Amino acid sequence: MQYNDRSNCGRLGPADIGKTVHLAGWVDALRDHGEVLFVHLRDKSGIAQLVFSPEFAPEDVYRQSTTLRNEYCINAVGRVVKRDKGTENPNIETGDIEVVITEMTILSRSKTLPFPVSEKAMVDNEEETISRETVSEDLRLQYRYLDLRRPGMQQFLIKRHKINSCVRAFLEQNEFIEVETPVLTRSTPEGARDYLVPSRVNPKHFYALPQSPQLFKQLLMVAGFERYYQITRCFRDEDLRANRQPEFTQLDLEASFIDESFIFGLIEELLCRMFEVGGTTLPRPFPHMTWQEAMDKTGSDRPDLRFEMYFVEATDIFTHTQYSIFKQILQRGGVIKGINVKQASDSLSKNVLQNEYAKQIVPSFGAKGMTWMRVTGDRLDSNIVQFFSDREQRVIIDRFNAVDGDVILIIADPSLEVVNSALGRLRLHVADRLDMIPKDLFKPVWVTDFPLFEYTENGVTSSHHPFTAPDRTDFDPADTEDLLSLLSRSYDIVVNGEELGGGSIRIHDPATQQKVFSALGLSPEEAKEKFGFFLQALDFGPPPHGGLALGMDRVVAMILKTPSIREVTAFPKNRSAFCPLTEAPSQVAQEQLEELGLLDLVKSEALPGSNREQEDIDYLSWVSRLGFEEEERPMIESALKNAAQMAQAVSGIAPDFEPAISVVQGQNCFRQGTSAARSSFVKTGDLFKNAPSVKGDYFKVASILD
Amino acid sequence: MQYNDRSNCGRLGPADIGKTVHLAGWVDALRDHGEVLFVHLRDKSGIAQLVFSPEFAPEDVYRQSTTLRNEYCINAVGRVVKRDKGTENPNIETGDIEVVITEMTILSRSKTLPFPVSEKAMVDNEEETISRETVSEDLRLQYRYLDLRRPGMQQFLIKRHKINSCVRAFLEQNEFIEVETPVLTRSTPEGARDYLVPSRVNPKHFYALPQSPQLFKQLLMVAGFERYYQITRCFRDEDLRANRQPEFTQLDLEASFIDESFIFGLIEELLCRMFEVGGTTLPRPFPHMTWQEAMDKTGSDRPDLRFEMYFVEATDIFTHTQYSIFKQILQRGGVIKGINVKQASDSLSKNVLQNEYAKQIVPSFGAKGMTWMRVTGDRLDSNIVQFFSDREQRVIIDRFNAVDGDVILIIADPSLEVVNSALGRLRLHVADRLDMIPKDLFKPVWVTDFPLFEYTENGVTSSHHPFTAPDRTDFDPADTEDLLSLLSRSYDIVVNGEELGGGSIRIHDPATQQKVFSALGLSPEEAKEKFGFFLQALDFGPPPHGGLALGMDRVVAMILKTPSIREVTAFPKNRSAFCPLTEAPSQVAQEQLEELGLLDLVKSEALPGSNREQEDIDYLSWVSRLGFEEEERPMIESALKNAAQMAQAVSGIAPDFEPAISVVQGQNCFRQGTSAARSSFVKTGDLFKNAPSVKGDYFKVASILD
Repeated sequence: MQYNDRSNCGRLGPADIGKTVHLAGWVDALRDHGEVLFVHLRDKSGIAQLVFSPEFAPEDVYRQSTTLRNEYCINAVGRVVKRDKGTENPNIETGDIEVVITEMTILSRSKTLPFPVSEKAMVDNEEETISRETVSEDLRLQYRYLDLRRPGMQQFLIKRHKINSCVRAFLEQNEFIEVETPVLTRSTPEGARDYLVPSRVNPKHFYALPQSPQLFKQLLMVAGFERYYQITRCFRDEDLRANRQPEFTQLDLEASFIDESFIFGLIEELLCRMFEVGGTTLPRPFPHMTWQEAMDKTGSDRPDLRFEMYFVEATDIFTHTQYSIFKQILQRGGVIKGINVKQASDSLSKNVLQNEYAKQIVPSFGAKGMTWMRVTGDRLDSNIVQFFSDREQRVIIDRFNAVDGDVILIIADPSLEVVNSALGRLRLHVADRLDMIPKDLFKPVWVTDFPLFEYTENGVTSSHHPFTAPDRTDFDPADTEDLLSLLSRSYDIVVNGEELGGGSIRIHDPATQQKVFSALGLSPEEAKEKFGFFLQALDFGPPPHGGLALGMDRVVAMILKTPSIREVTAFPKNRSAFCPLTEAPSQVAQEQLEELGLLDLVKSEALPGSNREQEDIDYLSWVSRLGFEEEERPMIESALKNAAQMAQAVSGIAPDFEPAISVVQGQNCFRQGTSAARSSFVKTGDLFKNAPSVKGDYFKVASILD
Repeated sequence: MQYNDRSNCGRLGPADIGKTVHLAGWVDALRDHGEVLFVHLRDKSGIAQLVFSPEFAPEDVYRQSTTLRNEYCINAVGRVVKRDKGTENPNIETGDIEVVITEMTILSRSKTLPFPVSEKAMVDNEEETISRETVSEDLRLQYRYLDLRRPGMQQFLIKRHKINSCVRAFLEQNEFIEVETPVLTRSTPEGARDYLVPSRVNPKHFYALPQSPQLFKQLLMVAGFERYYQITRCFRDEDLRANRQPEFTQLDLEASFIDESFIFGLIEELLCRMFEVGGTTLPRPFPHMTWQEAMDKTGSDRPDLRFEMYFVEATDIFTHTQYSIFKQILQRGGVIKGINVKQASDSLSKNVLQNEYAKQIVPSFGAKGMTWMRVTGDRLDSNIVQFFSDREQRVIIDRFNAVDGDVILIIADPSLEVVNSALGRLRLHVADRLDMIPKDLFKPVWVTDFPLFEYTENGVTSSHHPFTAPDRTDFDPADTEDLLSLLSRSYDIVVNGEELGGGSIRIHDPATQQKVFSALGLSPEEAKEKFGFFLQALDFGPPPHGGLALGMDRVVAMILKTPSIREVTAFPKNRSAFCPLTEAPSQVAQEQLEELGLLDLVKSEALPGSNREQEDIDYLSWVSRLGFEEEERPMIESALKNAAQMAQAVSGIAPDFEPAISVVQGQNCFRQGTSAARSSFVKTGDLFKNAPSVKGDYFKVASILD
């Protein structure tokens, strides 16, 4: 059997009836009907049913067919025939035909699978044989080659490829060229933590993996390329959240002699084409919202526009209120805002409003509490309505456009940020709970006019990055108020409350760039040390330019409606930045570290437990900087074992969305079974001997389990 | 001026005469003709001539135009007019027209350039204004954004992009899909040195950057993708040679249910299309040569077929020779082979043959010497012909197909490897010297049937990598002779003596894979530890598969006929794996190292001079482990300075091809000006105090300059 005459299983059809075909692929499923064996043979194109019967197959072929098991890889030759009436299988594309086999070779065998690969039943009306949800993700990642063999997972990666192709075709049509930028580059203070790569040739020097090719793409603009793009890997050593990976793929683009409108037009068309690959037509034109409007209406710079329930400003209603809580808040310069949950009286009982939302959920969002009012007839009904004047009640109903059956939720706080943030999360929480978010609806929006700077405990910092152009250049870098009034020429593209990408028009004037650095508290010398090569480039005729980056993993996951970016990544890491398949990161040979000048690292005297190969309990003791007595060991060992088992059990059923934060009362816990005797470590002064630092008379220690 | 109505300089033509156009770009060159200023404005499309004259431009525009300098970035509006007869400039595409400017804005200014960017003269017959060769490469890399602004360099990257596009289009047409594989992965013992990335989350554990996605692409085959490709970055921490970078781009592909013929057909078509982008038509079909034939005929597994001059086997001619040198070599089981340099008597004088080739060049290739014979009439002429019998001389002439004017060069050595290697290099050297290699000729060849294993001081090792399929699977892993007789199902594609890529059909049978590991001396446990996850994958129905990787940097450099891969890489490192632009690798903040658990590295007591920020001289002393006395410092300082200057001067003129090795007589050098007094370091025992190791009574020290 030669491979070059091979047919694809999934492409066989009635037109092939009578032909002899050569197929190769995997045993998706088998059914033994006494004398006749039916096999679903699967290749990348789909499934075809093979029939092994002693009537047509030579004896050795038939005998071998009885040894077939799931996921054996085989080669087979046979004749395509029409299926008998009533035995057609509409579950598969080739369900009208089957292939009567005359030759067969087993190319390789398979052990028992850790989880099923097949997704198609062999008989009509039979349930699909696999429910993906029952398999733990770490098991799927460990056997990723089997997980990816599932037709559904294959389709994700094939579609991802098609989305990439569509991106390239569109950008090339618009005269963008792809230029590759370095992966081994310089560590620059860009916000997140860098992954470092020790240099062997330059000892004690390090490359950094790029968090984005930001400076390189700007340099390409200085170099006159005018339109650049790259689908490229970026790296951030951050603590992992549900939808984050240490390495991720970015569509990075930049253009010269353009302004915001060019980017808006280009990306709208691009995203529409990308979503079309997934069968979704995005509504056009994409609306725009300033950052201020997004914050005012949704409390978020990633507004979810699939539903309304926008914020209503209510501060002025209560200027003269007698309600003491609001009164106090307003005296402190506070803010009162709310949302109207239309026709939710039936779903949101007083009990839910008061005991869940007001007492638990909203406090977990950072606000002190929540005020709620149900509209009954043309009146408000609530536990605190009696404190509002008639005028206040009327204005509330009026301002919130409230009618019978609506529920008004109000948050008041001295801090506008707290009100916006808590009310924004409340808006999403209620919408989710009441199923107000239409499925399969996509609502893109451009968010623009972000503040250029924000004020943090470290002083004035860039909201975006320091290369973002301000809306005006006449600012005084020493005047904080002036700085905080600046808007930036940046823009984010947000779909369904998720930021898919963002960018800005950049500074191309060296004087303005220096002013921004100065505003950030960097002296010319410090700026030069950190960004010297880039500042120098601005001295040689840089063009006006701007660009954008799209997080491809997120975009693809959204287009394909997968719950996580890991579903659209061939070989992702788990939430501990660990690859269960290859077991990376791993320990490496001493010689490798020696060559890199890292040997000191290994040679240095280890603290007790610092070697992970030792027992977990010592490691934990080391990490937590808490010693224990030898007789305590069995007890702690058993507690640790229980905790580990529980963690494993929990991680097995962990969903992919971010956990809701709930508030649990803190309380002191004491080790059971020990008397209140002083530890001998206290006496010898060894209790905190591993404590990482001492402050005054105190040792700083970490909590054992965070 | 709005950017969206902008025209491209290089696309203006006679059809635009009379139109008002908006242009933006860089001042490529200027010529001041008294009252009228001519400016070459350059954008990515080409150059147009702008005319600033007080007659048409408003006064402020004209005045501003007089401040223009090279590489200022400007915006301008003007009317396209036909040039006066006799002032056309055939150097530029738009040489028939010029643009009379009425509006102009300076977008940004440029300091004096470190080297010129312009490549086009403003007037016909004027010499091109720049000769790239005069600029040192480190200066070009330091100002890479200006270097890349040169139209010639831009074209390289644009063409590279087009070659990539062509690759993608062709592979997608053949149903290959691109799948992204991890960059943060596991260190595997694959030959070259890995770049390591310390993990913060898993202290003392490391990711490795991939040397190739070899195992991942094979896992994708196990996962049933059938046809995968990726244009991807790979990393090798090797000492840099002329045409090597620490990171490089590979076209990686793999397919299932295929054999060698599929790869040959696919890659031949692919390479032809890629070379067509550069305007080169490759000769088809590509010939095949076994590794044995390539070694026999050219002494190299990368045979350069642009010229013949193949090896002639002459061992048997001298079976009974009286010529004592040959006689001794043959007694030791040696080999005698030669080449016939056709019609080279005039170019290769006796003096050149004897004093250059026999005495210097060939010994530098590793052979003891070379025997030469010039053919005069029907006789041989040489310094040793008198030792050959008449029969021997006749057979030589016959065997080498020699005629009057030919020169026969012969190398004899007890080792076949030495003969092949030295004669192979001699063949290339002579061909190069005598200009026998036709320019612009491309000769691809598939080299196949490599030995599966080779024997080194470490025992049996894989010639390629341990996943390469052998030509037969019935071998005995304990029988070295049997192992060394195995051929592999691997193939290299070689063009003009350069290996552009290679690959193999892989092992898909776990038993064979285990036998190969066993042949390599790996116990099942060791194999499991090193490749466990991959071996496990072979247990689950792997398909037969194979693939290939092309070194894209090399292929593109060859297609575009650039002397180095750095010319087709946007931001390359120099030969010290250092980026003169960003100054990567660099030192990083202590906090970063602390977070990565690498702090010990910094805390450890530094050896004198180990901090590179200190003076070079101390660093050198530290590196070389040689102390010096304080009074010697000025002298050594001056010597070091001279050496550095010389190194810089030399590197400025260093060509890109690999240096020919020549033999210089070694001799002891003594420091000038010092008497033969004993160093005080000797007395105190400090002379070698930094010596890295001690062996018996000796210190091991490094030579100062390698």
